[in-house]
Amino acid sequence: MLAARLHAYTDDMSEALSIDEVARPAVTGPDDVLVEVEGAGWCQTDNHIIEGMWTDYAPQDLPMTLGHENAGTVAEVGGNVDIVEPGDRVICHPHVTCGTCRPCRLGEDMYCENAQFPGLTTDGGFAEYLLTNERAVIPLPDGVDPTDIAPHADAGITAYHAAKKAVRELDPGDHAVVIGVGGLGHIGLQCLDAMSAAEITALDLKPAARDLAADLGAHHTVDPASADVAAEIEGITDGVGAQQVLDFVGADETTGYAPDIVAAGGDHHVVGYGGHIHEPSQALVNGEFAYRGTLVGRYTELQELVALVDRGDVELRTSRYDLDDINTVAERLEHGEIEGRAVVVPP
Amino acid sequence: MLAARLHAYTDDMSEALSIDEVARPAVTGPDDVLVEVEGAGWCQTDNHIIEGMWTDYAPQDLPMTLGHENAGTVAEVGGNVDIVEPGDRVICHPHVTCGTCRPCRLGEDMYCENAQFPGLTTDGGFAEYLLTNERAVIPLPDGVDPTDIAPHADAGITAYHAAKKAVRELDPGDHAVVIGVGGLGHIGLQCLDAMSAAEITALDLKPAARDLAADLGAHHTVDPASADVAAEIEGITDGVGAQQVLDFVGADETTGYAPDIVAAGGDHHVVGYGGHIHEPSQALVNGEFAYRGTLVGRYTELQELVALVDRGDVELRTSRYDLDDINTVAERLEHGEIEGRAVVVPP
Amino acid sequence: MLAARLHAYTDDMSEALSIDEVARPAVTGPDDVLVEVEGAGWCQTDNHIIEGMWTDYAPQDLPMTLGHENAGTVAEVGGNVDIVEPGDRVICHPHVTCGTCRPCRLGEDMYCENAQFPGLTTDGGFAEYLLTNERAVIPLPDGVDPTDIAPHADAGITAYHAAKKAVRELDPGDHAVVIGVGGLGHIGLQCLDAMSAAEITALDLKPAARDLAADLGAHHTVDPASADVAAEIEGITDGVGAQQVLDFVGADETTGYAPDIVAAGGDHHVVGYGGHIHEPSQALVNGEFAYRGTLVGRYTELQELVALVDRGDVELRTSRYDLDDINTVAERLEHGEIEGRAVVVPP
Amino acid sequence: MLAARLHAYTDDMSEALSIDEVARPAVTGPDDVLVEVEGAGWCQTDNHIIEGMWTDYAPQDLPMTLGHENAGTVAEVGGNVDIVEPGDRVICHPHVTCGTCRPCRLGEDMYCENAQFPGLTTDGGFAEYLLTNERAVIPLPDGVDPTDIAPHADAGITAYHAAKKAVRELDPGDHAVVIGVGGLGHIGLQCLDAMSAAEITALDLKPAARDLAADLGAHHTVDPASADVAAEIEGITDGVGAQQVLDFVGADETTGYAPDIVAAGGDHHVVGYGGHIHEPSQALVNGEFAYRGTLVGRYTELQELVALVDRGDVELRTSRYDLDDINTVAERLEHGEIEGRAVVVPP
Repeated sequence: MLAARLHAYTDDMSEALSIDEVARPAVTGPDDVLVEVEGAGWCQTDNHIIEGMWTDYAPQDLPMTLGHENAGTVAEVGGNVDIVEPGDRVICHPHVTCGTCRPCRLGEDMYCENAQFPGLTTDGGFAEYLLTNERAVIPLPDGVDPTDIAPHADAGITAYHAAKKAVRELDPGDHAVVIGVGGLGHIGLQCLDAMSAAEITALDLKPAARDLAADLGAHHTVDPASADVAAEIEGITDGVGAQQVLDFVGADETTGYAPDIVAAGGDHHVVGYGGHIHEPSQALVNGEFAYRGTLVGRYTELQELVALVDRGDVELRTSRYDLDDINTVAERLEHGEIEGRAVVVPP
Repeated sequence: MLAARLHAYTDDMSEALSIDEVARPAVTGPDDVLVEVEGAGWCQTDNHIIEGMWTDYAPQDLPMTLGHENAGTVAEVGGNVDIVEPGDRVICHPHVTCGTCRPCRLGEDMYCENAQFPGLTTDGGFAEYLLTNERAVIPLPDGVDPTDIAPHADAGITAYHAAKKAVRELDPGDHAVVIGVGGLGHIGLQCLDAMSAAEITALDLKPAARDLAADLGAHHTVDPASADVAAEIEGITDGVGAQQVLDFVGADETTGYAPDIVAAGGDHHVVGYGGHIHEPSQALVNGEFAYRGTLVGRYTELQELVALVDRGDVELRTSRYDLDDINTVAERLEHGEIEGRAVVVPP
Repeated sequence: MLAARLHAYTDDMSEALSIDEVARPAVTGPDDVLVEVEGAGWCQTDNHIIEGMWTDYAPQDLPMTLGHENAGTVAEVGGNVDIVEPGDRVICHPHVTCGTCRPCRLGEDMYCENAQFPGLTTDGGFAEYLLTNERAVIPLPDGVDPTDIAPHADAGITAYHAAKKAVRELDPGDHAVVIGVGGLGHIGLQCLDAMSAAEITALDLKPAARDLAADLGAHHTVDPASADVAAEIEGITDGVGAQQVLDFVGADETTGYAPDIVAAGGDHHVVGYGGHIHEPSQALVNGEFAYRGTLVGRYTELQELVALVDRGDVELRTSRYDLDDINTVAERLEHGEIEGRAVVVPP
Repeated sequence: MLAARLHAYTDDMSEALSIDEVARPAVTGPDDVLVEVEGAGWCQTDNHIIEGMWTDYAPQDLPMTLGHENAGTVAEVGGNVDIVEPGDRVICHPHVTCGTCRPCRLGEDMYCENAQFPGLTTDGGFAEYLLTNERAVIPLPDGVDPTDIAPHADAGITAYHAAKKAVRELDPGDHAVVIGVGGLGHIGLQCLDAMSAAEITALDLKPAARDLAADLGAHHTVDPASADVAAEIEGITDGVGAQQVLDFVGADETTGYAPDIVAAGGDHHVVGYGGHIHEPSQALVNGEFAYRGTLVGRYTELQELVALVDRGDVELRTSRYDLDDINTVAERLEHGEIEGRAVVVPP
């Protein structure tokens, strides 16, 4: 089968991946599930993997097929698999977990002590077939198209997970700020709107992204290039600050907004990871705020997101690309030229 | 009356405060309470105020009487005061709040929009008398000595507040790490022990502090100077990390432990504020951990801490000093020469 | 001034209250606020008070002016009042609290140890003027009419409080059931919809109430007279049950639904109190569900509800009556002839 | 092998079970685990099963081997089992779950949609061998004896689960009441004490049980036969009531205490299920309290309880009986003649 594989770390996205002919993976264990991929979303993390930015955090043997936002049709299952059968359409949670370690038993899939992450630590879904397991697949409701929904497998669930943590702390009259209205941000914003009655302010440098935010329910938009962000948020929140900030950028500048824009006792969720946090401890103490890292989301949260999609509460802006055009996608994302989310469609 | 006052910011603790004769404050409003001070704890924050480190965060008119850990006997009350009367022994919550803004109505005293903080924004308790209000005083149970308990008004409640946030996330078998077993840390450790069944590891550079930690219930102690902290915690926690870290130091080095020692989904509570956080956003994302600032605690939490003290669950190590010796205290603390907590006893 | 007062407990609503000429209450304490009443909602609890159903739970000296859902314009304030001044339009939280007991300090207004409840334990708002205090008044946003919003002071906040407790436990894909779409139920349903992405089923015997529910966002409606409620909910929830049930009736029959319709681990919130609970302990154990009583709501929750109203998320169906017609209101509610909420408008 | 089996429902405990020779169960599935039983606790629920009290709640094919509190040594495992191997000593969670339904994925083992409950819905552990699966076994720490710990598999985890729910709501100075200091209650009491700083009052009709409670950490004991329970709790709690009540009896009389002894906003946890709840809805509304059913506990909670046992925080009072004496155990428990917990030791 064909697969888009990374052979060497590089900063040149024009030749990031090569399309190789490789063996189709085989079902061997009783819990294995083989999925024929119908859509695989391209993620900022793919660029980061290509650049070698994850080598400190996750073991990687090159060459490796990338692609961790996968959906498609079940082709074959192991003998112990009950929840799907060949022909079922599924979205694939990106973490292939063991089900028996304590984190798995707690429902904390992302902390599984024996997990694989296809596209990050083992072969992923920029290919005709993907090998995963029963614990990673969620059957799709009728009428939901795998290609359309694929990016929710990582972008969607990550945005949803952060939004869900925020929503727990948001009462009517409270304020939420969304920093960055790209692939994740535009989903996170809709999740906030569907699940809370908070007032939402979206920040983005690009006018099109701010327009999209307003379309999708943001009550205010701010251009950080032309406005004093701290003063804007102070005005919008009547001096109180935003109880919850979802930072889908995670750059030095955006994490630096926290002391000025987070309300006392509030949270700055670090979802994007383009840069650093550099703050005096005293700033966190004085404002009693938190920087909270956020990592993908649970299997059950992907179920919840599918339910939101099925209700029509979350709309995903996607564009489709052939497997052959995969490096074009890599380059365009690098230059901020993709609106919403690119989905790679294997042959 | 006599009061120890700051006239100018300085790094020279030997001449930090001067003992002045000033007018005794008067009860004027219906909610005012005048307290004859019997003990006022000296806090690391007093050194920070003297150095001018709070000028960016809180308005200060010099000269100002310092001292925000106060306890004593009620001398006079305003016409509307119900919960105490002259002669009652009280501990004073450090925040003098309005009771009608939304944070006050939520029980979030520390976020009061109209508060005073005696010893930080107005005259404090290194003096014969302190003016506060009904919302700040808590009557003491019989047999609890005001001089002994005074440091709980800030050191105690701050440590308790952080411990309480941690305890909510600690199940039996989980691990907590206490960084710094000084004035706050030795209280926080006891609160963790009284309110959870977590396994506790204490870090401190000083052997005496580590011995104190072991005495007070720590299951493990680590000397960060001679041990590899990350490896130690990995060994103690069987590779999982500590679900909750209470950092009573807040230095660059101690906040830097977080990516290595905090378990997935856990928290590094920033209580001390001697330095900075410098971390890549990716570290927070990969470990899904949080840096959570912590600021003093609520009035109701001081009630709860008084209950712990009354049960005998929290023991405070104190030493007493005359008001005249106040700069000696400032110097000793600066040089790390005070074990437990120093309490200033006005004449 | 004129006031509608209860002189003796009775089951005959046609002569429940008499319109008396009484002295206008006077501001005497520093925190007092005198409100000229512009609207006072009539509540099922008023019928219950008239029947003597609250004598076991609350002290009552007759004659007493009823009316606990009040809004109007501030006429006079005590010397210590900061948050309102004469001329301000306000809604009145029904609990007049002390602000210094532990429940008040926790933000739990309803558990205040020194509270008055105008219209239940002291004179209420079916009168030209109402005496309350600073802790009970919330200034209204511009454009919000006191007469329109008055019922939110009790019906609204009670429904909101129950909905907020439910929302914390509702994820997308989960189910909520609203039993009784009357004065409270139609508000509770809208709160659920605004603050969660749960699927909502409404039960009511009256076709008009079911139509109203569908209008206001219910995804399913059930007529308990013609349908097998357990089977209907089983079908709607795919055999799982409803994670949260809001029972605005509280009759023997409606509390009896719980073992059949509440999902494992879920809650049956008892808001209405027309009857009893009669269940074997084993039913609660087997389904691990809870019956959770719910009592009005906090001051801060009334602020949050006002924010929801201001956003347009909660629409209140009201009809207006003169003070003279007050017993007509009592009778009509007794016979289930009032849709939405009746508001009494003093002269 | 030998097994104690129920052939017909009966109220006569002297002939409840018969000792039969049956086939040893075999490992057939990849996740199966066969355990050689070293101890199986006898539970009040066994009496209830024998009386036919569970037929409405759980499917049962007689004859069936009872025994749901099992521990022993792994004899054989299926091909996919990773966490144990033959020779490992384990305690068995009573719910044998699927691991793939949504409740399992949430960590809510007890709500598994495809579970078996050995000793309730399939053959249990009053036998030489027990067939269970990988998801149900927890390896024991060195030095923990399977026979001693067996009752924790149900009695222990049920008491722990209820205590853990209570602890989340208990601050220092708050009060907890334990009703019934028998097999479950004496564990629940110790869990409360280990995990909170609440003040604990124990109620039991038997002097020996009250003495045991005092030994294990209860601050107060009350004899409900000779004292007015409401007045006693009012006195002990200074009129506030107990924030959390753990009712290990669940009789009409004990559930009836709630309106008088539960503090506003508190919970009455229904663990035992000997009787009913009969209360007016208004009682729950007026006190805003809840009746919360509690059903065994999660796998991860059994891990936590094992950690508590390993720390020495929970001591289990047990007595050992041969398999042949099993009906003697049934009778003695029926007559309240067993202190702590009886453990059946197969040959």
